[in-house]
Amino acid sequence: MADLTHFDAKGDAHMVDVSDKAVTARIATAEGYIKMTRETFDIITEGRAKKGDVISVARLAGIMGAKQTSSLVPLCHPLPITKVSVDLTPDPDLPGLRLSATVKTTGQTGVEMEALTAVSVTALTVYDMAKAVDRAMEIGGIRVKLKDGGKSGRYEAT
Amino acid sequence: MADLTHFDAKGDAHMVDVSDKAVTARIATAEGYIKMTRETFDIITEGRAKKGDVISVARLAGIMGAKQTSSLVPLCHPLPITKVSVDLTPDPDLPGLRLSATVKTTGQTGVEMEALTAVSVTALTVYDMAKAVDRAMEIGGIRVKLKDGGKSGRYEAT
Amino acid sequence: MADLTHFDAKGDAHMVDVSDKAVTARIATAEGYIKMTRETFDIITEGRAKKGDVISVARLAGIMGAKQTSSLVPLCHPLPITKVSVDLTPDPDLPGLRLSATVKTTGQTGVEMEALTAVSVTALTVYDMAKAVDRAMEIGGIRVKLKDGGKSGRYEAT
Amino acid sequence: MADLTHFDAKGDAHMVDVSDKAVTARIATAEGYIKMTRETFDIITEGRAKKGDVISVARLAGIMGAKQTSSLVPLCHPLPITKVSVDLTPDPDLPGLRLSATVKTTGQTGVEMEALTAVSVTALTVYDMAKAVDRAMEIGGIRVKLKDGGKSGRYEAT
Amino acid sequence: MADLTHFDAKGDAHMVDVSDKAVTARIATAEGYIKMTRETFDIITEGRAKKGDVISVARLAGIMGAKQTSSLVPLCHPLPITKVSVDLTPDPDLPGLRLSATVKTTGQTGVEMEALTAVSVTALTVYDMAKAVDRAMEIGGIRVKLKDGGKSGRYEAT
Amino acid sequence: MADLTHFDAKGDAHMVDVSDKAVTARIATAEGYIKMTRETFDIITEGRAKKGDVISVARLAGIMGAKQTSSLVPLCHPLPITKVSVDLTPDPDLPGLRLSATVKTTGQTGVEMEALTAVSVTALTVYDMAKAVDRAMEIGGIRVKLKDGGKSGRYEAT
Repeated sequence: MADLTHFDAKGDAHMVDVSDKAVTARIATAEGYIKMTRETFDIITEGRAKKGDVISVARLAGIMGAKQTSSLVPLCHPLPITKVSVDLTPDPDLPGLRLSATVKTTGQTGVEMEALTAVSVTALTVYDMAKAVDRAMEIGGIRVKLKDGGKSGRYEAT
Repeated sequence: MADLTHFDAKGDAHMVDVSDKAVTARIATAEGYIKMTRETFDIITEGRAKKGDVISVARLAGIMGAKQTSSLVPLCHPLPITKVSVDLTPDPDLPGLRLSATVKTTGQTGVEMEALTAVSVTALTVYDMAKAVDRAMEIGGIRVKLKDGGKSGRYEAT
Repeated sequence: MADLTHFDAKGDAHMVDVSDKAVTARIATAEGYIKMTRETFDIITEGRAKKGDVISVARLAGIMGAKQTSSLVPLCHPLPITKVSVDLTPDPDLPGLRLSATVKTTGQTGVEMEALTAVSVTALTVYDMAKAVDRAMEIGGIRVKLKDGGKSGRYEAT
Repeated sequence: MADLTHFDAKGDAHMVDVSDKAVTARIATAEGYIKMTRETFDIITEGRAKKGDVISVARLAGIMGAKQTSSLVPLCHPLPITKVSVDLTPDPDLPGLRLSATVKTTGQTGVEMEALTAVSVTALTVYDMAKAVDRAMEIGGIRVKLKDGGKSGRYEAT
Repeated sequence: MADLTHFDAKGDAHMVDVSDKAVTARIATAEGYIKMTRETFDIITEGRAKKGDVISVARLAGIMGAKQTSSLVPLCHPLPITKVSVDLTPDPDLPGLRLSATVKTTGQTGVEMEALTAVSVTALTVYDMAKAVDRAMEIGGIRVKLKDGGKSGRYEAT
Repeated sequence: MADLTHFDAKGDAHMVDVSDKAVTARIATAEGYIKMTRETFDIITEGRAKKGDVISVARLAGIMGAKQTSSLVPLCHPLPITKVSVDLTPDPDLPGLRLSATVKTTGQTGVEMEALTAVSVTALTVYDMAKAVDRAMEIGGIRVKLKDGGKSGRYEAT
């Protein structure tokens, strides 16, 4: 059975040694969604033009959240992030917002945790801003869509 | 149509004024899950006893994450948290881990964002620790289960 | 000659003891501006509608910055902020943006440092977003406009 | 008309991709001032020798503030800072303190935001320490004095 | 045998619930030392007057460190600190510096962790500043000297 | 007499310029201990199996603490840490826990401050978790055991 790399031979947690890994260009994209009532969906998507922009606040929170990843995830390495973008796309069929985050670095380890953190913080911020009108919103579908660069090669979700 | 409280009359984002809200005991519980392959599930749940404890690392990350909520969610108020607990329950039918976080405060605003953040950071940490064996894990079902205290009264998810 | 309260009898810096000060409602407003070329001014103010909203990004940064005040200013007390709002008003005569931040708390010490920090971070963020087109922008006029609540009474800048 | 680099074609804010920029030695110097009454000026400058050193506390705050830049300015890249120095020079004609900060890195993007942040936090700290004797202090003249390294070449303020 | 309060009945770590504890005035003092060679001691203590003040930099770091306690110690509650003071006293017999930190709050739980953290960060900062001349410095004797306020009553180290 | 590198010719503190230092593989190990009563020692070491794992919580806190070093120690450079491991070894003769932390980076300056910080935060966390049964625990013996990489060569404590 495969082993978890974050534990040593004694079973103690540690930060994996990446000292000898190559410094390469790395990219990761994560996705997710936040589901809401039709009424909340209408308020948020109309609001974009007229009443206040939930989407741009949440996007910014996601970008800033990516930079906090190594403070939040205990065994995650600090990384010099070179790019973060976050997209929120209204999906009337959900109804809700489809979230996507792409992070790049030139470093010794991948950035999928940064992309997943960006998506999570984006979703939490949408919840925070719309919770006064809808407490039952649900965050889901958070997963890695794409990861490339580094020794383990390209991964794309099916 | 209801209004979003985080925007003023001009549509500009601001932190809602809670100065005049009563200081009351408040509690919130959030839940979620992380779904994985059967093999990953076995590694994590066996690992608890033998090889290294993903679950206790993730629990601690969730508790610490709750304390960072107001730094992560832009319009969220800083709060003197009085209790955080995080539970991870293996569910072989998922297969994966069911996550739950309960946060309490005595303050002027609710703690559902802290509970949701605890669940999110717990899930991200499980992903980080098991990603070497399973990149396709999915985080979902994140929502508020219970919220009580404060003017808006008790809310329980159906 | 008046003494600086942040130093003890030996001249050593310390955080002033506010344990015995009353918990009262407190408010502070700070202001400032960022001056730029006419061309930059036009890009930012037009951009609001069409190309990307510098003003809403900077407002959010200012609000989040207010929450970091006690981490940035060494002898500043941590405070449960109950409200932050930040305004950026285009002033074609400057040309540039007039900045204003209002912070409230119910606590044992004032929030003028939080308001000043909000204005400063707002200005820095405008600079960051427009620096590709204008490196000569200047930040100035940062001062306390209003402070109220607490033993020392109301202060209004002349 | 020039475009703002922090917005994509849709007008959404993002962190600029610097992945393909060269890793070069970069330096930036920013300046500013804090203006005060003559009496406050005398207290601070005398205090240096006798009663407690506002200037050294503020210098340290500025240095530490530079390290928080990418947490404060939403679209700013995290950078491995290799040097920070902050100077505060009493100017009896202001009266007040002239502030200057120089930051260096070997990285893919410039450090003018770090230098501006250092100056801003230095000024805020002076305000905090002297506010008990002078609420009307004003922070101004914050701008980039020098920027060098990187593709865009040397910039010196006129 | 007594139980550890940070674990629940299942043995899982959690943040202790202090919701029902009284809000009272609390104080704690911690102490420690950093031992060095005679030459290093002379440099630091002379330096106070002439060459650069290790002691005032370390004092400030300790004060700021106290404010980060709940971010560093996983199960520690965030607290509205109302006072921090840190003292460093040269002891030629050690030779080295005797450290002491006193923290106050009006809250639901004690501040001994804040006082211990202040002493630890003060000691680390002295090490950092003098490490170029003395790598063998040793930090020790870190303990709680006094704790008062709250249900468990006064504690004084013997 | 040797000079302290963190002060310039005027005696002002600054962050040492490491821009021209080589990027090399660097490692540091620090050690320390926390001494406690026999009863506390028994609770913690038995607890490992049965009641809740103080040791694994403290290890994780130490690892996360290493990542906060440059925020805590004022003149310390931010570094891309590539590995952290923390060990806690029960020593019945102390009685207490022997602590050790090893940190690696590929950078322009050493990681002994990160290793010392990891040991300190680990010790503080043990104190926090056991303080309900033993307030008289003492943290000591914190020093650099090994440092290698970089111009100044290998150092081993005697």
